[in-house]
Amino acid sequence: MFSPTIYCCALLFFIPALLQAAGLNQGRWIDLSHDFAADTLYWPTADKFAKSTVFAGETEKGYYYSAYNLAAAEHGGTHVDAPVHFAQDHISVDKIPLEQLIGPGIVIRVADQVGKKDKSDRNYLISIDDIKRWETRHGAIEKDTIVLFDTGSAQFWPDAEKYMGTAERGDAAVAKLSFPGLSPEAAIFLADERGVKAVGLDTPSIDYGASKLFKTHRALFKRNIPALENVANLNALPDKGFTLIALPMKIRGGSGGPTRVVAFIPQ
Amino acid sequence: MFSPTIYCCALLFFIPALLQAAGLNQGRWIDLSHDFAADTLYWPTADKFAKSTVFAGETEKGYYYSAYNLAAAEHGGTHVDAPVHFAQDHISVDKIPLEQLIGPGIVIRVADQVGKKDKSDRNYLISIDDIKRWETRHGAIEKDTIVLFDTGSAQFWPDAEKYMGTAERGDAAVAKLSFPGLSPEAAIFLADERGVKAVGLDTPSIDYGASKLFKTHRALFKRNIPALENVANLNALPDKGFTLIALPMKIRGGSGGPTRVVAFIPQ
Ligand SMILES: [Zn+2]
Ligand SMILES: [Zn+2]
Repeated sequence: MFSPTIYCCALLFFIPALLQAAGLNQGRWIDLSHDFAADTLYWPTADKFAKSTVFAGETEKGYYYSAYNLAAAEHGGTHVDAPVHFAQDHISVDKIPLEQLIGPGIVIRVADQVGKKDKSDRNYLISIDDIKRWETRHGAIEKDTIVLFDTGSAQFWPDAEKYMGTAERGDAAVAKLSFPGLSPEAAIFLADERGVKAVGLDTPSIDYGASKLFKTHRALFKRNIPALENVANLNALPDKGFTLIALPMKIRGGSGGPTRVVAFIPQ
Repeated sequence: MFSPTIYCCALLFFIPALLQAAGLNQGRWIDLSHDFAADTLYWPTADKFAKSTVFAGETEKGYYYSAYNLAAAEHGGTHVDAPVHFAQDHISVDKIPLEQLIGPGIVIRVADQVGKKDKSDRNYLISIDDIKRWETRHGAIEKDTIVLFDTGSAQFWPDAEKYMGTAERGDAAVAKLSFPGLSPEAAIFLADERGVKAVGLDTPSIDYGASKLFKTHRALFKRNIPALENVANLNALPDKGFTLIALPMKIRGGSGGPTRVVAFIPQ
């Protein structure tokens, strides 16, 4: 026997493992979505989620039946922002191509950068350096990646004061918001230098709490890159090596909306 | 050279093709969801979808901004029914395991059985025979399949009269409903004899329009098998060989809710 045979047969041994790694059958699904209920967090000025009972109980025909009505602002809970949220004539949530919210995902963890001086001020801006630190370990972010940021905020959900700086509601509460966000520079870097498909994070907004001009939203949406907000459970994901699937409610002309965000981690 | 080497190396040649077939990277995504708007179809007695403008236009800070509020019944448009819709103490929509609404899908086409005698009476009941006809061609339905029925109704969306028999609203309109559904016998066959994970179809209800006692809903939900309703675009799918992914809005305690239904067809 000579070496090519041994080499080839050794490789053949791995075909099932390779198939398994690439398929949707072998692996785990992770839910990255908070649920919608009365305690779901919304922007201080936005209508919260409300569920009202149409019927719940035994019908006169002799069987159980339950049904509810819903109402809410588009932007609250785990949701996506469509480009038209901050960019006139850009695409609405129903027009975001499925392919743009489905693809290889990575998680960049910045929780240890947040609230360093003052625990009550969580207004950290994720920087290009934070991204490059990830790249030093894992290599350059590939084109068409979906980049998620774990700012450590999800641990506070649904405590509004800890999660976003204030539990107050109304216009006056906006000035008290305090949570991490993506800097406009880092957003432009991800879009223009890395060609990412979408971004997301575990806070109420892709701009940080102290933002007044929403420059990150505007930079992203001008480039038609949607943003996932209030994403849950990012600590259940590896830094890379998973497929992200975010499927929004298909609201015609919507500026965003409730989105089920899940990840598939191959075995 | 002897044969094992040639054999092994020939097989190695196919590894990339095998990986491609199994992966999520090579193939097409198909949207099987109607959008939510004022013309989205709801049960005659249910609240329709409504979107109201919070703001849409130039802000005083010099940038464009748009945001909307939503309201609707859970059961309308493309949506899922959770077991608790008709089975007391069974799981609500937020508790349906992701794995139950993600998996290998098939389409059973029964459009040519519907409205044969009278085009205005579309109250066809999908039978075990319809399922067996599919199996004669494609083999027995495998355990954990998600079974979709194309009744040819989606072509009429959003024309309520053609799609569901009446455009009238309110209690009196319910008696005028006319559309195909899954017979209780076929539902029990799929659940007990085939072990399917979920079912779905392109009509407003898994029970046909003339149903008074909703026996199919009750049979399915007793067995914790969710049903997708008002599914769109089934004619874009092959009869088998795709992955179905249905991700509902995660409504805590919900009896169902808006669901984005998509399919992946590998290349
Ligand atoms: Zn938003
Ligand atoms: Zn329903």
